Amino acid sequence: MNKLHTLSAVQAARRIAQRSLSAEAFARACLERIAERETLVQAFAYFNPEQALAQARALDAGAIMGPLHGVPVAVKDIFDTFDMPTEYGSAVYQGHHPVADAAVVALTRHLGGLIIGKTVTTEFATFPAGKTHNPLNPAHTPGGSSSGSAAGVADCLFPLAFGTQTAGSVIRPAAYCGVTGYKPSFGLLARGGVKIGSDTLDTVGLFSRGIEDAAFFIAALTRRPELQLKPWSGSAPRVGICRGFQWSQVQPEMATAMDNAAIALTKAGAQVSEIALPARFAGMAMAQATVMAYEGGANRADDVLRHGDRMDPRLAEQCRKNLAVSGSDYAAAQALAHECRAQLADAFGACDVLLAAAAPGEAPEGISYTGDPIMNGVWTLLYTPCITVTGGQGPKGLPVGLQVVGRIADDARVLAAADWISRHLD
Amino acid sequence: MNKLHTLSAVQAARRIAQRSLSAEAFARACLERIAERETLVQAFAYFNPEQALAQARALDAGAIMGPLHGVPVAVKDIFDTFDMPTEYGSAVYQGHHPVADAAVVALTRHLGGLIIGKTVTTEFATFPAGKTHNPLNPAHTPGGSSSGSAAGVADCLFPLAFGTQTAGSVIRPAAYCGVTGYKPSFGLLARGGVKIGSDTLDTVGLFSRGIEDAAFFIAALTRRPELQLKPWSGSAPRVGICRGFQWSQVQPEMATAMDNAAIALTKAGAQVSEIALPARFAGMAMAQATVMAYEGGANRADDVLRHGDRMDPRLAEQCRKNLAVSGSDYAAAQALAHECRAQLADAFGACDVLLAAAAPGEAPEGISYTGDPIMNGVWTLLYTPCITVTGGQGPKGLPVGLQVVGRIADDARVLAAADWISRHLD
Repeated sequence: MNKLHTLSAVQAARRIAQRSLSAEAFARACLERIAERETLVQAFAYFNPEQALAQARALDAGAIMGPLHGVPVAVKDIFDTFDMPTEYGSAVYQGHHPVADAAVVALTRHLGGLIIGKTVTTEFATFPAGKTHNPLNPAHTPGGSSSGSAAGVADCLFPLAFGTQTAGSVIRPAAYCGVTGYKPSFGLLARGGVKIGSDTLDTVGLFSRGIEDAAFFIAALTRRPELQLKPWSGSAPRVGICRGFQWSQVQPEMATAMDNAAIALTKAGAQVSEIALPARFAGMAMAQATVMAYEGGANRADDVLRHGDRMDPRLAEQCRKNLAVSGSDYAAAQALAHECRAQLADAFGACDVLLAAAAPGEAPEGISYTGDPIMNGVWTLLYTPCITVTGGQGPKGLPVGLQVVGRIADDARVLAAADWISRHLD
Repeated sequence: MNKLHTLSAVQAARRIAQRSLSAEAFARACLERIAERETLVQAFAYFNPEQALAQARALDAGAIMGPLHGVPVAVKDIFDTFDMPTEYGSAVYQGHHPVADAAVVALTRHLGGLIIGKTVTTEFATFPAGKTHNPLNPAHTPGGSSSGSAAGVADCLFPLAFGTQTAGSVIRPAAYCGVTGYKPSFGLLARGGVKIGSDTLDTVGLFSRGIEDAAFFIAALTRRPELQLKPWSGSAPRVGICRGFQWSQVQPEMATAMDNAAIALTKAGAQVSEIALPARFAGMAMAQATVMAYEGGANRADDVLRHGDRMDPRLAEQCRKNLAVSGSDYAAAQALAHECRAQLADAFGACDVLLAAAAPGEAPEGISYTGDPIMNGVWTLLYTPCITVTGGQGPKGLPVGLQVVGRIADDARVLAAADWISRHLD
């Protein structure tokens, strides 16, 4: 069997740059995999094989444009694309064709990347679910809101994909699908042309099969070679086990996964300690919800006021309520967020990174509910880099995801630590 | 002569809410003023009197929607509007009709505001100038990039307007036109539907004739009644004269204005002191330029890569160069910005606010160059609230603008202090 579609982005990019593999041949391998699997997985909001092949042929006909030359990248349908419809998962934007590419989509093309299609998002990257199934078990959700990106990478339909996280929409679906989800430090990737939900929370993130690919992708997009993966050097990482104020919400498989991880990492030589966040952080989950509601109210005001009847009714109701969230409550939430961000580096203590739950447990059954972001919102509001690793399996045999969390702007260290940790959890 | 068009937003809103003035009558007064003056001022990128009147009639026919009921608000053409073309000042977007309103435009309508038209912006809110003249002397620039919003408010075409600032595009045109320009603390107003130039710098700002109107407008948009203007109470404000590391760039009229302000405020009872920013802040002007270039590269990548031939050639060249700005330089600039923001509150010392130059001097002659944002970029990168006050006249008889600068998120105090200061500079 031809396994070309399972190549990592790094492997594919190297072979395409050496001209030992054509962009077209690699694209065809992905297209064949899609033809075989998409009926089941339903990862795409928009997909046109001819358009993908045309891009591949054009890339093969020209000089190597950059590090992503010929690498297929899927784009969550919350990002604008000039050549593909962009519906933000909502009937409100049915048939919408933006004029321009989102910033990271344009950068991807500029670096030689091939935009293979648009992936399913929940409506406006909130909670009403799309059609995507978890490829590991189609009776389960892939998670949301970046549902199609996570599921498609997991099922080897494409090696790389974009998502966004406002509460838990990169880390949670990556954990549920058993892939690498990387939410960079807030602001590391540009947001132009992404439909904004929350100005101060929305974070562009990446999906890949493995940490090396995530590091490769971010290093290319940001022109920061120092973000490429380097093996952890020197003594083993100091890892803080951080259950956090939401720990009572986790399922038994997560408690087991965390205990097992602490044992495995200790055995592997890591200095493992328990990290309790400062008392002030107890308010951060509520603060994140307040910020998301207030800012979402403003940014979806036009949608709900003019087109609320075409939105999911629960979402429309929430949007209307958000237009009345108190501005003073919002200001207090932001003040707490600033305070906690300033305290966070100290809260790490001597740890290089923290290890936290990526979700309450394995992926819930059914595809109408994409799972609870309760283990994610605090980290999103804190602006920390977060990367998923898999910490075993749950009762249904699905992955239980952990996340490696770093200090703000310390992405290179987090990538290297997550790589070390993932090797020693295996 | 009918002076209805000179009503402040607060005055007009009160009378319209009491039904002692109709939205239509007030709109007609503004339309008459526009008919008389627009040929000279050229504030509008798009204006349709029938559309404005239709909105006014609809508002008169219904219940009072909110605090902005019947108040005309002009919108810089970098914000999307569903019912008016939106060209971002660029031939690239000629005839572009967005699907949705920008967040603050939708909020304005939700609060009863009347969107009177789109105002001239420089191309993509950068440097290539539009057609607008300074109404105080049409041989001079109104400043940029929010050129039409500043000029139109100054000339009483409308009482309120939106702008954006990435380097100095709210404060500088407000200073040149002698109106109130208010750049709120970063993030106070939502940015959905604003064409992003720089994710971490772009700030939605306001124009009005007077500080009370600015406070009224922001309090309404944010649902924060505590931002409404309260007279400064207790002992007079403690004002730090902050010339900053760019002071060598100012013209003689600015040096005089600052000296005169220090004398006048001291006489009025303010505690006036000189504030020198910490040494690390010397790198902030360069850091702002690096951040703007790097982020602008990403966010205008699609525009320049596909449509560079339709852009101003100097802008296209700059956009191409920005696609190669070092990611490591960008990271260093952001690290310095974080460090200086954290130090800033302390740098204020005992001062309530700082007083700084809003521009190098009065508005330059000619309309092809919109002036130098050198006195603004540092404050934009610092995320501080900034409000213009007028500190006298320059050699051509045009206003010399100062800015009152506050601690981050301390907007209510800055508004009140600026009000006190403006009264004692008169």
